[in-house]
Amino acid sequence: MTVNRQIVLKRRPNGIPVPEDFALAEAPMPVLAEGEILVRNRCFSMEPAIRGWLDDKESYFPPIPIGGPIRAPSLGEVVESRHPGFQPGDIVRGLNHWEDYSVLTENTILLEKLHPDRSLPLSYYVGPLGGSGLTAYVGLHDVGRIREGDTVVISAAVGAVGGVAGQVARLRGCRVIGLVGSEEKARFATEQLGYHAVVNYRAVPDLAEAVRAACPEGVDVYFDNVGGATLDAMLINMKTYGRIIACGMIAAYNRQDNPPPIFNLWEMVARQLEMKGFLLQTYAASIPAAQAQLEAWIRSGALMVSEHKRHGLENAPALFCELMAGKTTGKAVLEIS
Amino acid sequence: MTVNRQIVLKRRPNGIPVPEDFALAEAPMPVLAEGEILVRNRCFSMEPAIRGWLDDKESYFPPIPIGGPIRAPSLGEVVESRHPGFQPGDIVRGLNHWEDYSVLTENTILLEKLHPDRSLPLSYYVGPLGGSGLTAYVGLHDVGRIREGDTVVISAAVGAVGGVAGQVARLRGCRVIGLVGSEEKARFATEQLGYHAVVNYRAVPDLAEAVRAACPEGVDVYFDNVGGATLDAMLINMKTYGRIIACGMIAAYNRQDNPPPIFNLWEMVARQLEMKGFLLQTYAASIPAAQAQLEAWIRSGALMVSEHKRHGLENAPALFCELMAGKTTGKAVLEIS
Repeated sequence: MTVNRQIVLKRRPNGIPVPEDFALAEAPMPVLAEGEILVRNRCFSMEPAIRGWLDDKESYFPPIPIGGPIRAPSLGEVVESRHPGFQPGDIVRGLNHWEDYSVLTENTILLEKLHPDRSLPLSYYVGPLGGSGLTAYVGLHDVGRIREGDTVVISAAVGAVGGVAGQVARLRGCRVIGLVGSEEKARFATEQLGYHAVVNYRAVPDLAEAVRAACPEGVDVYFDNVGGATLDAMLINMKTYGRIIACGMIAAYNRQDNPPPIFNLWEMVARQLEMKGFLLQTYAASIPAAQAQLEAWIRSGALMVSEHKRHGLENAPALFCELMAGKTTGKAVLEIS
Repeated sequence: MTVNRQIVLKRRPNGIPVPEDFALAEAPMPVLAEGEILVRNRCFSMEPAIRGWLDDKESYFPPIPIGGPIRAPSLGEVVESRHPGFQPGDIVRGLNHWEDYSVLTENTILLEKLHPDRSLPLSYYVGPLGGSGLTAYVGLHDVGRIREGDTVVISAAVGAVGGVAGQVARLRGCRVIGLVGSEEKARFATEQLGYHAVVNYRAVPDLAEAVRAACPEGVDVYFDNVGGATLDAMLINMKTYGRIIACGMIAAYNRQDNPPPIFNLWEMVARQLEMKGFLLQTYAASIPAAQAQLEAWIRSGALMVSEHKRHGLENAPALFCELMAGKTTGKAVLEIS
């Protein structure tokens, strides 16, 4: 093979992205320098965070340039290595691009050699056993400090992160309430994921009232994946000393120039709340134990895995756009075989 | 004396309160029951938090009813006691009302017997040595975890809390930047309170830009007394892992039905920020050491005290309205002699 197919950014999305914002391009096959590793990508993790990198706005990463490949967490197999720590056949995760082959170095963000349980699908390692599941686990434990008996509310409750978070909080003895945007997701949340109660924000006249009805004694921990009006409704439902895990604010991602306003932040003082934003890489020390526990729960069947998969590099934009339009349930994964 | 003069709520303020929202009334002199303490009030602490209690809105305290006396932190002298722990002549602080005499019990919120340094004015014990100073100290240390070398920004920088917080952070080896609303306050902040730099938000076209110019490497700790647009400007100036001490949101107090929107909360995730609201009473265990340190600094001259005083119970409404209109510098105190 002499070319490396990539998905590149054709133009900056306006609001919710559409497949036409992306294009398939070809780059030359990389030639390795000393210390580099060539990986054939197998799975891409579709994540809302990618949406933020598509805008022309400085953030924790620089914006993806027009014509540049789309940065994305991926999982692949080493096919050639000029780094002593990696051998052909190794399975590695890292922040690569939507492309057939990627070059990694030891400075690649999130680089990690995996020892996957071969009895489980490899795609689990970008979902419940990858960034999504680890983010849910570390967020609940290290950031939100959940305790048995806590009332925990989770937004985007059937999403890649929320769907794991809801199950983990339940397994830890919490009462768990999910916020979702459709009746189908509401059914999935209670019947498949084991939420104790669920609120479909599209079906209630007043979200804050509906949460109050579901949590009459207030909320100890809110795992926020969406921000915006949902966060506003939760601020007036928190208990004193409540904790808000600021994991994602998808409501803001599709409209960076016009983010949704928050009005109830005064409650931070009145209720003495703590809100803490986090990115998984900050909690690297907690990852091995989290991964081991999640693997054990999946093997025993205690943790149910929900995936929304597509195949083929050329379908990456369509899958990402489905995710950003709220049309997926569970982990959105692109597989390349 | 057979009557007890009180200031009561005549009508609910609309926005910034005016003296006509209040009235002078007379209640009978209280007769003590077993366990009660009669206190002649000497000083009232004027605080923005009182504004929140004037609205017909449930908060951490119930709203003050129309015709009811205004709840306020005060300091007074015991004149009669049917509680074994208190004797006539004792100086006590507690949450009382704007009135000549108050009845306290051991359940009075913030009740505390003081042993004031008689070489210092008694009014200091509702200001830098009272709730304002203690809030500044506890907020910086227990909530914001300031460290030597931190860049610390303080809003309402010459106010009762901010004016102490700015000095304490400087004494702890931080670089301290104050946000103020007039040139007069800006001069006072640098010349009297020792701020390293100051930004007059009314004199700059873009507050976020002005803060960036003053803190080019970003802000470690933001001590927020105001919320609103100021908080929004600070969110995009925080360093990764920055801490926001949510002490007060005065921008919201005067307009409870129409609080100012916050747009930049996404930065909580992107910069992995922590925002923590607090009320002083939660940190009771930290108060004795804080009070001792503040007293030592005042005695040595390291901490400068700034007061805005009026005399006479009948002037309480006017002073409170000045405070809420942003017309005071330093601690607003009402004295009754």
